[in-house]
Amino acid sequence: MSGVVKRPIHKCTLDENSSNDDFLRETNNDLVVLEEPLEILLNGDLISITMRTPGNDDFLAVGFLFSEGVIQNVSDLGSVTDSCQSEEGCNIINVSLPNKSSNVDKANGKKLRRGTLTSAACGVCGRQSIDDMLEICEKQSVDQTMTREVVAQSTQILSDNQKNFSLTGGCHCAAVLTDKGDVLASYEDIGRHNAVDKTIGDLIMKGIVSRPSENNGSDDKLPMILVVSGRLSFEIVQKSAVASIPVIASVSAPSSLAVDLAEEVGITIASFVRDSSFNLYTHPERIK
Amino acid sequence: MSGVVKRPIHKCTLDENSSNDDFLRETNNDLVVLEEPLEILLNGDLISITMRTPGNDDFLAVGFLFSEGVIQNVSDLGSVTDSCQSEEGCNIINVSLPNKSSNVDKANGKKLRRGTLTSAACGVCGRQSIDDMLEICEKQSVDQTMTREVVAQSTQILSDNQKNFSLTGGCHCAAVLTDKGDVLASYEDIGRHNAVDKTIGDLIMKGIVSRPSENNGSDDKLPMILVVSGRLSFEIVQKSAVASIPVIASVSAPSSLAVDLAEEVGITIASFVRDSSFNLYTHPERIK
Repeated sequence: MSGVVKRPIHKCTLDENSSNDDFLRETNNDLVVLEEPLEILLNGDLISITMRTPGNDDFLAVGFLFSEGVIQNVSDLGSVTDSCQSEEGCNIINVSLPNKSSNVDKANGKKLRRGTLTSAACGVCGRQSIDDMLEICEKQSVDQTMTREVVAQSTQILSDNQKNFSLTGGCHCAAVLTDKGDVLASYEDIGRHNAVDKTIGDLIMKGIVSRPSENNGSDDKLPMILVVSGRLSFEIVQKSAVASIPVIASVSAPSSLAVDLAEEVGITIASFVRDSSFNLYTHPERIK
Repeated sequence: MSGVVKRPIHKCTLDENSSNDDFLRETNNDLVVLEEPLEILLNGDLISITMRTPGNDDFLAVGFLFSEGVIQNVSDLGSVTDSCQSEEGCNIINVSLPNKSSNVDKANGKKLRRGTLTSAACGVCGRQSIDDMLEICEKQSVDQTMTREVVAQSTQILSDNQKNFSLTGGCHCAAVLTDKGDVLASYEDIGRHNAVDKTIGDLIMKGIVSRPSENNGSDDKLPMILVVSGRLSFEIVQKSAVASIPVIASVSAPSSLAVDLAEEVGITIASFVRDSSFNLYTHPERIK
């Protein structure tokens, strides 16, 4: 079992008839989700510290660098190595970018080095100003449609992948599905944006996700839907836009800025996706 | 109504008998929680950008600087001013610290200036390394007790203050209660750590919260409990420790690092506080 750890607890229930001795009861250990800091290095320079659940740190780092506009696709990457080979307790990952990577946005890399710190739900960290965030988001084509059945089922499919949540109640989950509802990748993490970075990072490493410049437009893109547990904030829409994923489904509510960015970049937001119903906040024309 | 804004939605329910025309139905506007970036300036220098729900930005900035160890109490503060007087759309706040403030930790201020960016749930941002986080956390005395009744009722009291959550389903809430269950301060925000910063920042401005050095030890401190919606991560324990709040109650699960830090700094964690029952993860001896 990875991503969780045992801690002793006292389980307490208020009962007027119970004595103090009954009140504090030592029970068996409880499982809690692992939270540890990760230092992300770019060519050896510290660019980010994030609190995350250990595991798949390579996908996390790659997804983060992609969503921040530093890399465009898997061929930009040199090596992605963690500082040790142990399963846990390895809290440094280094991404090296070979000089020949013509697509690497060195300006973005330098910007990150100057002043980035991210945390568990911190996806817009890494930029001193929000003014240039929209620069790396592409306008999505409405030709990529999604059926209402896949949207309605998406959060149940996500739920089937939330193994650590069912054990601990303490972590988020993200998944990317095809327009048939097949799971392309799915990861859990204590941080919402980390779960998304790991999921998209996996798809970058597999060559399924890349920037439009590599694909000569969006026509040959696989229609995909990003599904997230919990709420939907600005940074998740940003990550979806950079990855050219035109539909986002969330279990809970979106924020105003998530809605406004999605409207602008052509992404469909379906929120409160539960029990065969959902609310479309943007671009309903894509859902058939 | 502040902190929320209207957006148009299509409410969709899957019904095999319904036609496509029935499927997409324009409804009235829906309320979503406001999310906007805030630039926090310290003596005019940008030290942090956080995605937050506008409102009470002064408390947010003061609570953030306090939890990062930059200020010790309200007397360290010069002026706290936002860039405009409009109710919304004012996304810059400047905290000026007079030179005479002997307690101001200028080293921490400089550290923040070098490389801080925070986001919606990003409380450990602001430090290039986690190694020095524990330096500003004080060990809490177990003499400050809390009754099991107040712990059990705390999340219901929090829920009574979640006005924007009940409107939008999209924001977190924090509250600080006395050991009698009275609300000292309570704020909602799209970011969990922002809700805590606003709540503690309010109490700093009122002089109720300050660093122990100002109070000659913790004996004369008001026993308090910090209550948070959702999950409990490392950064919330850090903020509670710096503010000398010895008990934290959360609606949902804690992380491993939250539990481990609380154990070390002497804070009692009560999680899954629902329906007159809860789990104590650390220091159960404080709950009577």
